[in-house]
Amino acid sequence: MLENPRSPRVRAVAKLTKRSARKQTGLYLLEGPQAAREALAHQPRTLVELFATAAALDKHADIRDAASTAEVEPILTTDAVLDAMADTVTPQGIVAVARQAPVSIEEVFSTAPRLVAVCEQVRDPGNLGTIIRAADAVGADAVILTGDTVDPYHPKVVRSTTGSLFHLPIAVGARLEDVVDLARGAGVRVVAADVGGQDFLAGRGLLADPTAWVFGNEARGLDEDAVSLVDLSLRLPIYGRAESLNLATAASVCLYETAFAQRSS
Amino acid sequence: MLENPRSPRVRAVAKLTKRSARKQTGLYLLEGPQAAREALAHQPRTLVELFATAAALDKHADIRDAASTAEVEPILTTDAVLDAMADTVTPQGIVAVARQAPVSIEEVFSTAPRLVAVCEQVRDPGNLGTIIRAADAVGADAVILTGDTVDPYHPKVVRSTTGSLFHLPIAVGARLEDVVDLARGAGVRVVAADVGGQDFLAGRGLLADPTAWVFGNEARGLDEDAVSLVDLSLRLPIYGRAESLNLATAASVCLYETAFAQRSS
Repeated sequence: MLENPRSPRVRAVAKLTKRSARKQTGLYLLEGPQAAREALAHQPRTLVELFATAAALDKHADIRDAASTAEVEPILTTDAVLDAMADTVTPQGIVAVARQAPVSIEEVFSTAPRLVAVCEQVRDPGNLGTIIRAADAVGADAVILTGDTVDPYHPKVVRSTTGSLFHLPIAVGARLEDVVDLARGAGVRVVAADVGGQDFLAGRGLLADPTAWVFGNEARGLDEDAVSLVDLSLRLPIYGRAESLNLATAASVCLYETAFAQRSS
Repeated sequence: MLENPRSPRVRAVAKLTKRSARKQTGLYLLEGPQAAREALAHQPRTLVELFATAAALDKHADIRDAASTAEVEPILTTDAVLDAMADTVTPQGIVAVARQAPVSIEEVFSTAPRLVAVCEQVRDPGNLGTIIRAADAVGADAVILTGDTVDPYHPKVVRSTTGSLFHLPIAVGARLEDVVDLARGAGVRVVAADVGGQDFLAGRGLLADPTAWVFGNEARGLDEDAVSLVDLSLRLPIYGRAESLNLATAASVCLYETAFAQRSS
């Protein structure tokens, strides 16, 4: 039974809320039963450690069983220890440590993808999480993070994907130019969501073809260099008086429009 | 110069962060220069009081001039007073009090609207704000709040609309059955976003006609009674493995699809 919130083992887990520790170890935190359940269902081999209270294991017998199948022995602990490990206020009796399992962009484009979401310099964890969730919803083949996009293993991203982090391949740390090269080689058109682009309605017929969307920073959008790399830029129209759209909203509309175009054609 | 953060006048403004005070007075809070600027640009007559530091008035000469045009004399005050008034941590030197200016549902449907968003039991301020912003972006004619939907004059809703609260008519406190009756009388089809509905792609051709979308609670969706009232229910498909979509994401996709259908036909 792990009881001391100040023990080195507990501290090592708590450090995973920091990017530097995630980078150094290749591990990340899963907080709460839902995240542990989704990880065990979809990426059981990435689970390294499962910390839980006896009450939580009783309540979530499915997680205990799935952990057993994945050959992970739960480590009994206390709520105080879990609170010390977690980034959230209440991990609800369960914290797990998992191995980051990003894919390479070569893998993404070797599978003849039809719909890919590329996030270039997206900085807000909630936005990234919502985009990953929307990409999952539309059945995208992968999400690729380029430039200084926020780490997908950041606890807030993990939470806001509500499980989608485990549902589709995610590539991290790629350069946009390499993504564009590989996409072209795979017959995938690279389309930027850009306020300086062509009218969306005029261009959307093209979305029936294999498409990699590129979404930019929430405040600045895509820079000129990024826009100059892509095959096509489309601007989601503002018909009313709103100054702009929330990034995650705009990305979700682009992704659904593409999924619909690919299914209607 | 208003200097005492504990004075009755400051307390009366601060109370507007509470629903009961907003209901009693018919007033609400605008925090920060951007909200004051948008309110002055689009609904100048609703502005009742403008509290600002001398530094903020110097920095935002456009707000000082617009207030003067609206015949509102700024009241000079201190950052400590503004902090005491506001719900946010930093109101950036400006807090205003405005009169709530909702429209009636009779007004909404007397103008032959083509696109209306109805929020039934939406409880999260951020979700409501994002839906109002998306409705503004697609050029919707109005937003109608029914049932126990969160107050649109809640400080968090005001903030998350990023100005859209002032861009289009908003009706509050209506009953869904009355909205449905008026919509039908005005030749507007009432369409529910509902997980039990028909496939979106099969039904979306109908969206080219005048449409009032009904969006339900973020956790429970629309209840049976609500669904039984509408003309059509559509289900946004999940092609991947996501369990569900964020409400604001789903609403934004429905609204854009409708705006596109109405412009392509």
